[in-house]
Amino acid sequence: MATDPLLLALDFGGTKHAAAVVAAGGKKWRAYQRALSPANGDRESDLATMRSLIQHLLGDAQPAAIGVSFGGPVEAKTGVVRLSHHVPGWENFLLQEVLAEEFQAPVAVDNDANLAALGEYRFGAGQEHDSLLYITVSTGVGGGWILHSKPWRGTAGMAGEIGHMVVDPNGPLCLCGKRGCLERLASGPYIAQQVREQLQTQPQRGQLLRQLIAGKLETITAQLVSQAAAQGDDLGGEALDKAAWALGVSIGNVANLMNPQRFILGGGVTKAGDRFWTVLRQVTRATALPEVNFEIVPAALGDDASQVP
Amino acid sequence: MATDPLLLALDFGGTKHAAAVVAAGGKKWRAYQRALSPANGDRESDLATMRSLIQHLLGDAQPAAIGVSFGGPVEAKTGVVRLSHHVPGWENFLLQEVLAEEFQAPVAVDNDANLAALGEYRFGAGQEHDSLLYITVSTGVGGGWILHSKPWRGTAGMAGEIGHMVVDPNGPLCLCGKRGCLERLASGPYIAQQVREQLQTQPQRGQLLRQLIAGKLETITAQLVSQAAAQGDDLGGEALDKAAWALGVSIGNVANLMNPQRFILGGGVTKAGDRFWTVLRQVTRATALPEVNFEIVPAALGDDASQVP
Repeated sequence: MATDPLLLALDFGGTKHAAAVVAAGGKKWRAYQRALSPANGDRESDLATMRSLIQHLLGDAQPAAIGVSFGGPVEAKTGVVRLSHHVPGWENFLLQEVLAEEFQAPVAVDNDANLAALGEYRFGAGQEHDSLLYITVSTGVGGGWILHSKPWRGTAGMAGEIGHMVVDPNGPLCLCGKRGCLERLASGPYIAQQVREQLQTQPQRGQLLRQLIAGKLETITAQLVSQAAAQGDDLGGEALDKAAWALGVSIGNVANLMNPQRFILGGGVTKAGDRFWTVLRQVTRATALPEVNFEIVPAALGDDASQVP
Repeated sequence: MATDPLLLALDFGGTKHAAAVVAAGGKKWRAYQRALSPANGDRESDLATMRSLIQHLLGDAQPAAIGVSFGGPVEAKTGVVRLSHHVPGWENFLLQEVLAEEFQAPVAVDNDANLAALGEYRFGAGQEHDSLLYITVSTGVGGGWILHSKPWRGTAGMAGEIGHMVVDPNGPLCLCGKRGCLERLASGPYIAQQVREQLQTQPQRGQLLRQLIAGKLETITAQLVSQAAAQGDDLGGEALDKAAWALGVSIGNVANLMNPQRFILGGGVTKAGDRFWTVLRQVTRATALPEVNFEIVPAALGDDASQVP
């Protein structure tokens, strides 16, 4: 094993976990491991998965420090996880304390979207911008802020929940109990669900998409919807326009409220192609006041933004 | 005249102007003057009105410093007014430079809602809260931020335009060209306009309000609507419920996005009484995620928040 100080980076996601080591001051991983979480996992199975990844990476070596990205709200000051929206058992768990004791190293824990914002600010699409909102549009929709050149996490680590801003109070019901949340209108699973329902009720439409999935409705994902839309599928195109509209109204509203320099967009749905970005930019511009300026750019660090050392 | 250093506080509003002097370090005005702006005023008539108020207050005395509150977006760093939404001619006006030259004193200029936020933070309902949004619901709807214990003005001084966040994309048309903006649903003049239209089209309703205005529809104001609602008028109550709903959705959305400790509400519409506050608090709570906590309180400094020295 190397003898120079090693930093350990951990990423607890909703559906997958990852761990990596990097030499202090380095920008490339020395080694990297990832694993899917089991279907009916809980906090203990998440921790067991992570311990096994770490064992693979470190063997008997000792990390000099540990940085943890967590897929849910965290009180960064104390490293206490407030909850996971996906995995039970994480409520008020002292993750920083537990890891610090176990590995005898200093530990910092923060929310994944906050860390993606910080990563883009330091090393990616947010360099030289002292205010930005990073937004991920994926299984869920979340955000992380840089304001006054540093992370803004909110008074209890809950800032950035842009996915549960209401875009259309008469819209469809969201899991959170409200109607027309951004996440309900623009996240990958909901895009897939909407298209699935339309294929069932509108037999004349979505012919390209039907071919793509060979008639198997249960296999539809937002990625397949994007693929069909790129080939000219009517239903697929409409579904993505609707998601882009919802995202555009949200970003325009946030521009009026906060006036940041930049919006940085990551997550699978934002890879839906030019038409998605065109609609998104048009709707954002129409929603923001004429005097409010901003840029919307894709994330530079991809899905690893939160893991940049 | 007093010989100790005098601070001069100026407030350029959309419809009225005010000026006051205070001894350095003091919290009470030595003297105060206000004047309405002329109906078809412009920047030069605004400045002339203000010069006359200052002459009354100061005579031949020299101010040690001048603080200016402006009713529109300002670049606080340079003291350049970006525009007034109410009075023509203010576009990119070097207000700080002009006043500094005229009065040979240092001058600071900021937007009125930002200064109200700062005033509440230092001396009012925001003391010991390092994050807050001040919202005024009056002729317009605007806001000012304290984050990380200091003002957040946005990258170009445009932050706080909560009045032009879209609450209902299918709502009525706003002056800004969009549909269902908060200002369109909750500001005083629009509340009055909506009730006026309903009185014309629904002859059986609003009997108490009709008595209050002696049938003169053109005299309706949001204040009269509140008064009628307090006496049990059906139309008045509904109109205020709708305004409180729009404000509640907006504040709940902002709570999810920013997670500030406190929302501080000022402006005439927020004086509409208990029912207004009850609906507002219920809707905000239902819109914010269960894990997101906050308080909503009335402004402590009233309409003078932006003029506190």
